[in-house]
Amino acid sequence: MKSDIQICRDTNLTPIDQIARQAGILPDDLTPQGTLKAKVKPSILKRLNDRQEGKLVLVTAITPTPLGEGKTVTTIGLAQGLAKINQSVMACIRQPSMGPVFGVKGGAAGGGYSQVAPMEKLNLHLTGDIHAVTAAHNLAAAALDARLYHEERHGYDAFADKTGLTPLRIDINRICWKRVMDHNDRALRMITVGNNEPGKTINGIARDDGFDISAASELMAILALSKDLADMRQRLGRIVLAYNLDGQPVTAEDLQVAGAMAVTMCEAIEPTLMQTLEGVPTLIHAGPFANIAHGNSSIIADRIALKLSDYTITEGGFGSDMGFEKACNIKAQQAERGPDCAVVVATLRGLKANSGCYDLRPGQALPDAIFSPDEKALLGGFANLKWHIRNAAKYGIPVVVAINRFPQDTDTELNLLKAWVSEEDFGCYVDVAISEAFGNGGEGAAELAQAVVSACQTPAQFKPLYSLDQSLEEKLMTVAEVGYGGRGVELSPQAKQQLAELKQQGHDNLAVCMAKTPLSITHDPSQKGAPTDFIVPIRELRLCAGAGFVYALCGNVMTMPGLPEKPAYMALDIDDDGNIIGLS
Amino acid sequence: MKSDIQICRDTNLTPIDQIARQAGILPDDLTPQGTLKAKVKPSILKRLNDRQEGKLVLVTAITPTPLGEGKTVTTIGLAQGLAKINQSVMACIRQPSMGPVFGVKGGAAGGGYSQVAPMEKLNLHLTGDIHAVTAAHNLAAAALDARLYHEERHGYDAFADKTGLTPLRIDINRICWKRVMDHNDRALRMITVGNNEPGKTINGIARDDGFDISAASELMAILALSKDLADMRQRLGRIVLAYNLDGQPVTAEDLQVAGAMAVTMCEAIEPTLMQTLEGVPTLIHAGPFANIAHGNSSIIADRIALKLSDYTITEGGFGSDMGFEKACNIKAQQAERGPDCAVVVATLRGLKANSGCYDLRPGQALPDAIFSPDEKALLGGFANLKWHIRNAAKYGIPVVVAINRFPQDTDTELNLLKAWVSEEDFGCYVDVAISEAFGNGGEGAAELAQAVVSACQTPAQFKPLYSLDQSLEEKLMTVAEVGYGGRGVELSPQAKQQLAELKQQGHDNLAVCMAKTPLSITHDPSQKGAPTDFIVPIRELRLCAGAGFVYALCGNVMTMPGLPEKPAYMALDIDDDGNIIGLS
Repeated sequence: MKSDIQICRDTNLTPIDQIARQAGILPDDLTPQGTLKAKVKPSILKRLNDRQEGKLVLVTAITPTPLGEGKTVTTIGLAQGLAKINQSVMACIRQPSMGPVFGVKGGAAGGGYSQVAPMEKLNLHLTGDIHAVTAAHNLAAAALDARLYHEERHGYDAFADKTGLTPLRIDINRICWKRVMDHNDRALRMITVGNNEPGKTINGIARDDGFDISAASELMAILALSKDLADMRQRLGRIVLAYNLDGQPVTAEDLQVAGAMAVTMCEAIEPTLMQTLEGVPTLIHAGPFANIAHGNSSIIADRIALKLSDYTITEGGFGSDMGFEKACNIKAQQAERGPDCAVVVATLRGLKANSGCYDLRPGQALPDAIFSPDEKALLGGFANLKWHIRNAAKYGIPVVVAINRFPQDTDTELNLLKAWVSEEDFGCYVDVAISEAFGNGGEGAAELAQAVVSACQTPAQFKPLYSLDQSLEEKLMTVAEVGYGGRGVELSPQAKQQLAELKQQGHDNLAVCMAKTPLSITHDPSQKGAPTDFIVPIRELRLCAGAGFVYALCGNVMTMPGLPEKPAYMALDIDDDGNIIGLS
Repeated sequence: MKSDIQICRDTNLTPIDQIARQAGILPDDLTPQGTLKAKVKPSILKRLNDRQEGKLVLVTAITPTPLGEGKTVTTIGLAQGLAKINQSVMACIRQPSMGPVFGVKGGAAGGGYSQVAPMEKLNLHLTGDIHAVTAAHNLAAAALDARLYHEERHGYDAFADKTGLTPLRIDINRICWKRVMDHNDRALRMITVGNNEPGKTINGIARDDGFDISAASELMAILALSKDLADMRQRLGRIVLAYNLDGQPVTAEDLQVAGAMAVTMCEAIEPTLMQTLEGVPTLIHAGPFANIAHGNSSIIADRIALKLSDYTITEGGFGSDMGFEKACNIKAQQAERGPDCAVVVATLRGLKANSGCYDLRPGQALPDAIFSPDEKALLGGFANLKWHIRNAAKYGIPVVVAINRFPQDTDTELNLLKAWVSEEDFGCYVDVAISEAFGNGGEGAAELAQAVVSACQTPAQFKPLYSLDQSLEEKLMTVAEVGYGGRGVELSPQAKQQLAELKQQGHDNLAVCMAKTPLSITHDPSQKGAPTDFIVPIRELRLCAGAGFVYALCGNVMTMPGLPEKPAYMALDIDDDGNIIGLS
């Protein structure tokens, strides 16, 4: 089979203005960026206000291996499959971060014959939204350190006299705004800024700091969760960057930098329209990771797609304990709109990896044996799939299992797994289909598409796990107990103190965004399958007042990934004709 | 008078594909990014290969105040003036960095009725080239720290066994590749990366590091100086990131990251076409600062413009000792094409600031008195203008002085200055015109345009100050003595050692790029006017093997600016209709 980039390059794509027209997007709604991508103005929603919304299908997965189980392949394939069976459909996915593109996982455009095209545009820069998030975030950080420095060197009174500004009196020990970069760069996790030559102070004030990856930033969450530009502007102003010496929050509004941040992000709020290899219109917007952020593309993009099509296919990152949970509890509550159907992607290799039959180590390749037929290992891993089916069903919506076929998979094992799902009594609506979207595009996902259409005709009543008026502890416990099947949470002394402060400052009504490993339902990546009887340790709580959630760091999860020994970037280059090679 | 952004917004702009067509750029050469900007493919140069080149006009200035003397206003105004007198003309300018936009100086799109439009697009993101430079630069930095970490934690032999890669054995004390950001962020000048909790090593290896502003980076220089994509790819491979334990260079090619850097920058190599308020086609490409980098837009953009028009107007940043010197000695030698005419921009306020009659302090507003008529102060400052005229003439090309009128300037003083220039015997071709480009656009620059046309008809023989086969010391001395009028250079012990190493490694044939204050012809910002009898202290030499020069840091110049007490970002916001306000 050809490489992803070769398949993409050999496909005749349709000019994006034609894709837009077919989708019902008028020239006035569109700002083309070249011939194959275009920004869509959120003002289109005013024009479409009276239209009825279509169905929202949320694709999730079993607990994945570090290489992923083809959730984007299935999302794009399903959208193509629906088009093949003559349904009106759009897909909404996240913009890939350069961290994984250059690191271990590679691109995030789907693969094989189910890709968003051109995949090299999607995987690199696209229309610059992540760069805008990075720039706005770091502007606030530079502004904060500059203000700290100027107030300190002049003294508060002299600073006020000189500038006419009220001193913010930032507590250097309570700065909670880090810097961000869209790379996997472990050396930036913990840094010291403001170092000086001995006896000098011109480089600012020394303090501990660090970089998160842009995909984990509050600004990325705000971009994904904002209703419109005005809402984004308000959220930016609410961001708490630090506390002052009286323990009061110092916001981006206080620092007079929220306006400039909004200016920096005012093009980023427009989703980017692209197409799949089979011409299905696809909106790309925002790129939060699902382990260390809320892991779902934007509310604005979903709204546009729901107004324009009968089926909107979107995905939450990693397993149903991760992006799906946050789609249902954070995004759906802010959007006031939940999904109508869940698709759970499972693979033979992914289930076997969950069986406990193999010695899997983070950062190492999967053993070859995992790709050979092994009914025992498959059955061992089936527990994980059952867990994710039941988990998705908890939210009150029908579930369709998509068994994503890899080239080396045997019909025997695929059919066996399908039969197991069909025969199990889950006590709720569950259907199953094998998807050959990777190898056969929409045609290969037609059976899955038909199953999704049937599921969406089922009466369903979406409900999140918690309501926002519960307390923060109740929400944390609900996610750990109901969302993960554990026995609750254990807060570190630091997290306990932070919880008390958050409540005292009036943030008890925010949602909770769990940051944890995606490689287990628990916080511990070595616990595969469907663990029970675990307690989730929460080491730190971070306020994201603009995004509207409290960020809970569980176990030893890190908010800045690192590069492996042989990163994906080593394969990338341009050929003599200037074409990109080595991207997958 | 209306604000810059208001003037820009009230102007009817022409669709960019029409601007392109009028300029002779075919639809196949163009990738529109919205309706008012478009990427131009460098492959256009093959099609235009047999065309004759037009004249290259290089705009420079007197020693400026920190607010600038309107060089971009004059560049754009002159281009509009040439169009007004029916000449075929294009302008080529740099992409503004967000550092100054959010810091002190504000935008860099020109001003008044001589702007590149839409100014808010030019000043923010544009088509993402600076973001691409930042991303590619920081990818190499992340790659370097990751390799250092993995080789260290496995041990060289085990690393080789595990990966099949040859260990690079990077000397942690000889890493010369910093990280970059497109903000003014003094707290990032000197940092420590790779910090860890006690007893842990997961965050890499601790070492001193720092950030430069993206506009000062070698990648920005490479973007500006590359002939084409293949040349850029080769230059990226040559970049020296560090030295190994044997003192041998570790290049981006050695790290296998040069290909991915080229992939990251392969759209950035295409200049962006925009228009002036009067519809003159303008190419925007690269954004190196002229104090801490080589300060000129790209060779590719110039080449395209020279093939398409009779007059190409470009500018070198700051005074003629800064960007102009580097345009002539670095860019022209690499491009094998020098300018045909120099335009020296002078202002009343700028000359008075050079008179020594005022107490000027860096970071403080100019005193009101400087805007009032004062013949004595003007005459005092005239020495600076004479110096810059003679300096430009040294390169063998005709000089036209453009007196850039500010609204508060009096006819009396403007005419006085014009008469002084006319009456002085410079022993070379010097003409002078008053430019009212700010207030009157091209009409206000018609006299200047006519003077430039006449100057370009003068037989001239451009010659750089040094040839590349001279030694590095000779080049440094030539710039200090002939380029600045000083008595030579004094190398710090560190710089002396670096010079010996650079020569030993075979880099004696590179150009020299001086990093120094732009606020004086010397290295000392307090020395105004036309100082003589000074020695330029060089504290550090940095190799830029990919850019093709050795970077000399003079005096206490810094490669990462800081934000002032009341930065420009405080005025920026979006209004209720989503329009950007407060940008100038």
